[in-house]
Amino acid sequence: MPVLVMKFGGTSVADLARIRNAAEKVKREVEQGYDVIVVVSAMSGKTNELVGWVEQTSPLFDAREYDAVVSSGENVTAGLMALTLQEMDVPARSWQGWQVPLKTTSAHSAARIEAIPRDNIDQKFAEGMKVAVVAGFQGISSEGRITTLGRGGSDTTAVAFAAAFDAVRCDIYTDVDGVYTTDPRIEDKARKLDRIAFEEMLELASLGAKVLQTRSVELAMRYKVKLRVLSSFEDTDENSGTLVCDEEDIVEQNVVSGVAYSRDEAKMTLISVADRPGIAAAIFGPLAKAGVNVDMIVQNISEEGRTDMTFSCPVNQVARAREAMNKTKDAGEVNFRELVADTDVAKVSVVGIGMRSHAGVASTMFDALAAEGINIRVITTSEIKISVLIDRKYMELAVQALHDAFKLENAG
Amino acid sequence: MPVLVMKFGGTSVADLARIRNAAEKVKREVEQGYDVIVVVSAMSGKTNELVGWVEQTSPLFDAREYDAVVSSGENVTAGLMALTLQEMDVPARSWQGWQVPLKTTSAHSAARIEAIPRDNIDQKFAEGMKVAVVAGFQGISSEGRITTLGRGGSDTTAVAFAAAFDAVRCDIYTDVDGVYTTDPRIEDKARKLDRIAFEEMLELASLGAKVLQTRSVELAMRYKVKLRVLSSFEDTDENSGTLVCDEEDIVEQNVVSGVAYSRDEAKMTLISVADRPGIAAAIFGPLAKAGVNVDMIVQNISEEGRTDMTFSCPVNQVARAREAMNKTKDAGEVNFRELVADTDVAKVSVVGIGMRSHAGVASTMFDALAAEGINIRVITTSEIKISVLIDRKYMELAVQALHDAFKLENAG
Repeated sequence: MPVLVMKFGGTSVADLARIRNAAEKVKREVEQGYDVIVVVSAMSGKTNELVGWVEQTSPLFDAREYDAVVSSGENVTAGLMALTLQEMDVPARSWQGWQVPLKTTSAHSAARIEAIPRDNIDQKFAEGMKVAVVAGFQGISSEGRITTLGRGGSDTTAVAFAAAFDAVRCDIYTDVDGVYTTDPRIEDKARKLDRIAFEEMLELASLGAKVLQTRSVELAMRYKVKLRVLSSFEDTDENSGTLVCDEEDIVEQNVVSGVAYSRDEAKMTLISVADRPGIAAAIFGPLAKAGVNVDMIVQNISEEGRTDMTFSCPVNQVARAREAMNKTKDAGEVNFRELVADTDVAKVSVVGIGMRSHAGVASTMFDALAAEGINIRVITTSEIKISVLIDRKYMELAVQALHDAFKLENAG
Repeated sequence: MPVLVMKFGGTSVADLARIRNAAEKVKREVEQGYDVIVVVSAMSGKTNELVGWVEQTSPLFDAREYDAVVSSGENVTAGLMALTLQEMDVPARSWQGWQVPLKTTSAHSAARIEAIPRDNIDQKFAEGMKVAVVAGFQGISSEGRITTLGRGGSDTTAVAFAAAFDAVRCDIYTDVDGVYTTDPRIEDKARKLDRIAFEEMLELASLGAKVLQTRSVELAMRYKVKLRVLSSFEDTDENSGTLVCDEEDIVEQNVVSGVAYSRDEAKMTLISVADRPGIAAAIFGPLAKAGVNVDMIVQNISEEGRTDMTFSCPVNQVARAREAMNKTKDAGEVNFRELVADTDVAKVSVVGIGMRSHAGVASTMFDALAAEGINIRVITTSEIKISVLIDRKYMELAVQALHDAFKLENAG
């Protein structure tokens, strides 16, 4: 039998009625002839409750105990989902991470999956079980302790099962009906994409389109797992949602697939840095150690042995970045005159695999922004993405202008 | 190091503050030089919530999934207790049933403990861990699935660990401060007992003094585990509570240790049963099959091949009993004229190991009741217990009269 993986997030299993709704979707796939692996999250709110208890109990908690407590939410949903399917006459049983066993590293609360032996579940499929309900987000370490995979871990669990069981597809049911050309709250002409390439999805996800967890997309790309995002709350069929896939599987590739944004950015500039070999490492090493997520980096032309170094980071990390830089200055490791922070900027990006083979994307972008009188503070580019920092007040306008300029209302 | 087992029930770990209070009691025992095994229940209310979800999902639920869901409450408490102890600088870790592993039969929701290998926990004790926090109520079957032990399973878990680890004692922390000569709500002269024999505790527990689960007392008796009941909510020391122990460990044995009662009894009489060999089996077999918990049984003298058969059962099982008896009559298996039910009776019992060697307990009892004008409907006796059925309206009076007659205000 072909195997299909279906994953339901916290809002999709928030109460017994929603679990039943999800189970009906599972039953339909069984009737289509699939053996189904269902990966479930905790009922929404449950994980936060458990995390709250742990943090109140022990601010510097033992991550092994944290994992043992926090993983219990998924176990409850898995059991309830199996029971719901049984009530619908679908042969089903639940599997906790350690029962599969889903083997992980011992990096508690941020463990990585090492192996998913198929034997136990395959044997049950062979005996007539139609649905294996797996508690997401959790595994077992070589020491026999419960691990969790960190934020978005249930998406990653689902993709890993799809890879291990050569699934025809991994369907991620969530509270949105797919991936859009941009945020419909900002641009009402935003269109749902039928297909998007893994690389594009990665750029969109890391830019704040929080539909899929980045690690799960990376894993899907590596193992060529067809990943589909679709809504739990609508009637769905095989054409619903957005398919995240290999670029070869996309026939009509748009030059640009989407416009992403990130509102809470800060632009920081180290003015008059003494330029020397290794200076970038001397700056960004301490920032990384301080937990600052540096995104864009621009270095101006060096004059008389001094340069300006500009970088962006989330606005709530500015204080941390400043402290780290002052320390390195005091330690004599980096010499600069001043650190200037502009906390009033936003990032807007266009993303598209097609731009590899199409010239002129950058100039179209810059023209469109100029036509609206939007000044560009910083530019960075990658093979499939161009990002600019602009004043935050222009963010919505920039998204709309770029959506128009690349004719994304015709995408999909 | 000597091992001490401490068990905390649901109200004793109802929230983070109470878990902390319980952890402080554990820490004090560690400071006394014990290696401690702590057995915890789910935070009060949690198990009922989970059971409710299962029952709403699937009225005839798969007990394996029920167990997987319902056991999660204890896992949460175990992790939080371990974290709380770590915060107090007590080396602790949590163990879920399958991690120990606590091996059970496959009778899901009512599994029996088969083995508790000591290796894993002993090794951690040897490495310097001072407290093993064990999730109560749960184990693992030979098929690798989670089992639960049924009602009161955490008490049973605690006693089983005490037996497996040759513990010096098993302390059951609960919301009462010990076992009393009778219910203090009925008789304000009721006294807390310092010691009580296993056999007496069994009679008192099954008579409705719900301090300890019957199975746990039976297990403690079989393995000679010293069992102590004491309060979570008071300052306690080594003399607190009530010790349930072998009768040899009780120096000053009272003739009668306690007066128990059961309010909601019914007395049923099958009038004019055709008496023949095997008639008792023909009556009580179908009743047992129908789930009627028959307690006392009295058969009158047979006259002319016919007799009256009287039995008692909980008042809410009368309809079920009547239905079962009518069926057997219709099937021609038992012939009787009439089934009379008196649903307005209560049972009062005196319990005491000492009555084995003391004559006159019965007559003291009957005299005391007669002096109050209380009519006795049915009498049954065992080696250490005399029970009577009386009109329910006299129940409190009977308890008080018997407490006086056996001078229990001087017990303890």
